[in-house]
Amino acid sequence: MSEAASRSARPKLFLSDNSAAVHPALWEAMRAADEADAPYDNDAISRSLDERMGDVFGCEVAVLWTATGTSANCLALAAMCPPHGGVVCHREAHIEMDEGGAPGFYLHGAKLLLADGEGAKLTPGSVRAVVDPIRDDVHQVQPHALSVTQASEYGRVYRPDEIAALGSLAKDRGLGFHVDGARFGNAAAFLGCSPAEAVGGADALSFGFVKNGGMSAEAIIFFDPSLADVARYRRKRAGHLQSKGRYLAAQIAAMLDGDLWLANARAANAASAEIAQACGERLLHPVEANEVFMRCSQEERDAIRARGFDFYDWGADAARFVTGWDTREDDAAELAKAIASL
Amino acid sequence: MSEAASRSARPKLFLSDNSAAVHPALWEAMRAADEADAPYDNDAISRSLDERMGDVFGCEVAVLWTATGTSANCLALAAMCPPHGGVVCHREAHIEMDEGGAPGFYLHGAKLLLADGEGAKLTPGSVRAVVDPIRDDVHQVQPHALSVTQASEYGRVYRPDEIAALGSLAKDRGLGFHVDGARFGNAAAFLGCSPAEAVGGADALSFGFVKNGGMSAEAIIFFDPSLADVARYRRKRAGHLQSKGRYLAAQIAAMLDGDLWLANARAANAASAEIAQACGERLLHPVEANEVFMRCSQEERDAIRARGFDFYDWGADAARFVTGWDTREDDAAELAKAIASL
Amino acid sequence: MSEAASRSARPKLFLSDNSAAVHPALWEAMRAADEADAPYDNDAISRSLDERMGDVFGCEVAVLWTATGTSANCLALAAMCPPHGGVVCHREAHIEMDEGGAPGFYLHGAKLLLADGEGAKLTPGSVRAVVDPIRDDVHQVQPHALSVTQASEYGRVYRPDEIAALGSLAKDRGLGFHVDGARFGNAAAFLGCSPAEAVGGADALSFGFVKNGGMSAEAIIFFDPSLADVARYRRKRAGHLQSKGRYLAAQIAAMLDGDLWLANARAANAASAEIAQACGERLLHPVEANEVFMRCSQEERDAIRARGFDFYDWGADAARFVTGWDTREDDAAELAKAIASL
Amino acid sequence: MSEAASRSARPKLFLSDNSAAVHPALWEAMRAADEADAPYDNDAISRSLDERMGDVFGCEVAVLWTATGTSANCLALAAMCPPHGGVVCHREAHIEMDEGGAPGFYLHGAKLLLADGEGAKLTPGSVRAVVDPIRDDVHQVQPHALSVTQASEYGRVYRPDEIAALGSLAKDRGLGFHVDGARFGNAAAFLGCSPAEAVGGADALSFGFVKNGGMSAEAIIFFDPSLADVARYRRKRAGHLQSKGRYLAAQIAAMLDGDLWLANARAANAASAEIAQACGERLLHPVEANEVFMRCSQEERDAIRARGFDFYDWGADAARFVTGWDTREDDAAELAKAIASL
Repeated sequence: MSEAASRSARPKLFLSDNSAAVHPALWEAMRAADEADAPYDNDAISRSLDERMGDVFGCEVAVLWTATGTSANCLALAAMCPPHGGVVCHREAHIEMDEGGAPGFYLHGAKLLLADGEGAKLTPGSVRAVVDPIRDDVHQVQPHALSVTQASEYGRVYRPDEIAALGSLAKDRGLGFHVDGARFGNAAAFLGCSPAEAVGGADALSFGFVKNGGMSAEAIIFFDPSLADVARYRRKRAGHLQSKGRYLAAQIAAMLDGDLWLANARAANAASAEIAQACGERLLHPVEANEVFMRCSQEERDAIRARGFDFYDWGADAARFVTGWDTREDDAAELAKAIASL
Repeated sequence: MSEAASRSARPKLFLSDNSAAVHPALWEAMRAADEADAPYDNDAISRSLDERMGDVFGCEVAVLWTATGTSANCLALAAMCPPHGGVVCHREAHIEMDEGGAPGFYLHGAKLLLADGEGAKLTPGSVRAVVDPIRDDVHQVQPHALSVTQASEYGRVYRPDEIAALGSLAKDRGLGFHVDGARFGNAAAFLGCSPAEAVGGADALSFGFVKNGGMSAEAIIFFDPSLADVARYRRKRAGHLQSKGRYLAAQIAAMLDGDLWLANARAANAASAEIAQACGERLLHPVEANEVFMRCSQEERDAIRARGFDFYDWGADAARFVTGWDTREDDAAELAKAIASL
Repeated sequence: MSEAASRSARPKLFLSDNSAAVHPALWEAMRAADEADAPYDNDAISRSLDERMGDVFGCEVAVLWTATGTSANCLALAAMCPPHGGVVCHREAHIEMDEGGAPGFYLHGAKLLLADGEGAKLTPGSVRAVVDPIRDDVHQVQPHALSVTQASEYGRVYRPDEIAALGSLAKDRGLGFHVDGARFGNAAAFLGCSPAEAVGGADALSFGFVKNGGMSAEAIIFFDPSLADVARYRRKRAGHLQSKGRYLAAQIAAMLDGDLWLANARAANAASAEIAQACGERLLHPVEANEVFMRCSQEERDAIRARGFDFYDWGADAARFVTGWDTREDDAAELAKAIASL
Repeated sequence: MSEAASRSARPKLFLSDNSAAVHPALWEAMRAADEADAPYDNDAISRSLDERMGDVFGCEVAVLWTATGTSANCLALAAMCPPHGGVVCHREAHIEMDEGGAPGFYLHGAKLLLADGEGAKLTPGSVRAVVDPIRDDVHQVQPHALSVTQASEYGRVYRPDEIAALGSLAKDRGLGFHVDGARFGNAAAFLGCSPAEAVGGADALSFGFVKNGGMSAEAIIFFDPSLADVARYRRKRAGHLQSKGRYLAAQIAAMLDGDLWLANARAANAASAEIAQACGERLLHPVEANEVFMRCSQEERDAIRARGFDFYDWGADAARFVTGWDTREDDAAELAKAIASL
């Protein structure tokens, strides 16, 4: 079989960054961690993460690893919101739509208070529209935290001043401020600002690595270390304190080495940008990270799929393409061409 | 530095099977899973596990992977016991002593009902002693499940008739029957019977691999597949449905290939047996799996440690040695010698 | 002071049926229960309730008393919906808006799935609009129950065929069907049909008495008695099994004697009807029970209050008047006159 | 029928103070509260309770009424202990034995850590025996509160110095300190000291009235008012904020008028003391409150019952007699005589 035939045989995947391969540097780091060390998070690499992440964000932080974004989000929020409280988030936030009710579990029945906003981004106004009408009495669930997603579920990115305004509103209202950063790398790569500016004064960040070349490690960054003390107990209680935690820590450490997380995110963003350009007027959302939402008919989707591309339908009239750290440049270019030719 | 010097320099670890290295076959299997596949548990390997485990146990089963023994135990129990119910377990069971209250979290406040028994093993009599005095009224928490550990927290193993008797009692009383098999491999290796005989009619088994050469994958085996349907939702809700689940499935599959799980367990058991023989009268518990509990003074422990061995004190007057799949034969032999010379 | 002066001095209350006096027949019944009897719900009156309510609904039922509508609703729903499930209800339902997050507590984090509908009434179409888009996978919370309010939060009443259609939809989709009947008496009085027709095949009804002349007793009617077995444990666990439960049972029994509940509800409805007639075009909702929502300016409200009436503002441009079993005919007539004169 | 015949016909009840009649003064107070007032706890009587209880305890307090001892205990503890924490209590405490797992529900899975002590009383030593061995790591549930019962489940009363020592230990260890005072009146009556001395520096007291002549009102006294702010939300969320709360407040206020609670408790204690004297050597526990535990055979119990007395067996070889505010002096005297004649 010729190389070209082989190339066209393998599927060109734009389904999700969820299922990408693990980056070689992480495999290497995990193998290097094979030497026995203390269990749980007492190994040398786990113990180094506070300092390493402190360097990234330029301040003192406490870091907990966990295997999934869902547990990262929920452990962070559970440290901020009591069972009888509420968390303001976007109506289309991952914690509301796609975590199987995990916040209800981890927060012991606390309520998500749903706000609106274009591109799944909140604004101070949309947050106030939810918070202000809540009577300050025991009959209504009171807000205790605010959660935003950077980049948002539609691949939109909060600019430093936008997210700072939300952080500031949270502080004013006495709300904890959480950033779901499942695609934080993509946001930071897009913004080109410091990681600290990209989180806008958050109390906690779910810093995602799995979608960005990791295998099974996300980091919860607590900018208020006292929250981490609670979260440590909750992580164990949720069965997320892996005994061989050094393999998770090793993934995170490798991601930080030489800013691999940024390099991976830039590659994914670049592939999306190339595809976006081909979409032109068809784009449902400006493309700022590694997701492209494109208006197109069933026939058009069939046509693209016929050329070997795999991706999700987005409702009846659109498609979603997601790129990853390992999206092949050729594949992105070919997809762009295929879209342009529609 | 000579090889001998180097050898004596590295610590000879008998601390815990928790922190052992990952078996090479598992590394290989994980790397082989790097090729993108469907996310969560929709990949080919995850989908193969029901059948593969069905072959191991000789019956239809439903299998869910999860990263930790704590989540495996709690997801299994949560499928059997309502929030207002109780789970009978040994007073020294891992779920009672060492899981940071995880059963209270996963079972929404259900209660552990504590029973006694030598070597952390329950007997029908000790279970009845807990269950029988409970008045059948709403003022007292009613038992809904029974959980035993195979091998027990003291490395004791239920014989097929012993565990069958407990399973039978559970059925008679309408209790779900759960087996915590964090060291199930060691138990099965010791018994030499079929895996099915070693679980005694359980409704669910937490089949542990992490202590036996795995990295981050345990399997919950549901012998009653209807329980798995609930557990699937609960796993997601607990943040344990990893998006790149194929790497967990690959670990489990590799463990089953050629009965690697049994080979690893036999190696660990053999090392413990050798050490046990040296302990003689000092043994606190018969050694049936991969743990050795030995009576000895602080001075004696100091003497052993001075020879390069690392292990835990067990209270003031004893030591615990744990062997693993990768315990070096030389290390075990040297430890036996060191003990014999006390 | 002349009688007239005294009359005009006392406030003419249309605030809420929540704070009305206890009906004299209930005082009498409670005093009669003073004689010691078995504690909790083992007294003779409590034990008679299944049969008495069975007569009301013409079928076998299991009845549990509890002190509040919130606990009644939540105990009923907790028997139908697992912690990982969801309950479809109206966006303005009491369980969503006014119970301080109680469903999240009692249902261990289960989620309310919010549907629309005029007058806070659901329709099969509005329920399907919520249920149908839910993907049947573990990432989204699956619906397990449907809850409607009869009469609704805006005093609207489901006709027998309307509520039957919802009950039927619930059955088709495998959902438990709960009716919040905090004002069930008012609904039944309005409909004039049998109580059974007014609940539309519900699995459980929260049959409210507190707003209808009671002091501290609501009844949960389980049409599926197996649900009651679970709810009994949950009631105790929630601290709602009062030791002197006979005083609650006595209230309910007295309400059933000679259909006092219907007589009280008819009186309240009649007072609201009289007021409604005066409102004419100003009505926000047709008046079918004991609540009147009237469009009016701040000045108009001031004018009414100046005449000695007490009621709540309903947003900036409306007023809410609620009548009770003990609303004085004169007060209602005077209020009607005051409104007519605006 | 002659009066004497009628008297001997009615059962002479020593079953439980749980099912006694409501004191006439409370009936009067409740009737007086019939006049409509603001709902929930906004009525004048509810609003007066902080000050009235402050007078009783000689310090600022925040008071919440609730209908049951179970909810009082659990709401108090939930304000002190996070879901991942533990509450030290006696192995035979009501919260452990008789509340249907309510602490697990209200505290979201927090754990009761069981301590020993004669007569169901804890001592600093027995508390330390539970607390000290807990490793300060995430694998074990950490203690966050201490709960004692005054008077204890066996009618034993902590002396001021005893309970102060426990309160002091709690403070030293950073534990919240809760007193379950279901029979606090009986304890205070026995001690003759100030109510403040009888609670030993508690952060919260469940001040029981139901067993002491009330119908449906207990008071949670928060000596640390910041805890009350949380508890207010939790009470609503648990469905315990009754809309006609003024009837509960009225009961409590009437109990405080002229120290009725003490008078009632003294009457109950006196009756128990008389019975206790007749028991002599048969007493299982010194009688300090209103419960008498007496060693006696089945035949002896039959003999007493044959004389018209009703009471509970206490295991196979003992009886429990409980007296109440309304125990008739004649009944107590006759029971004493019956016991003496055994």
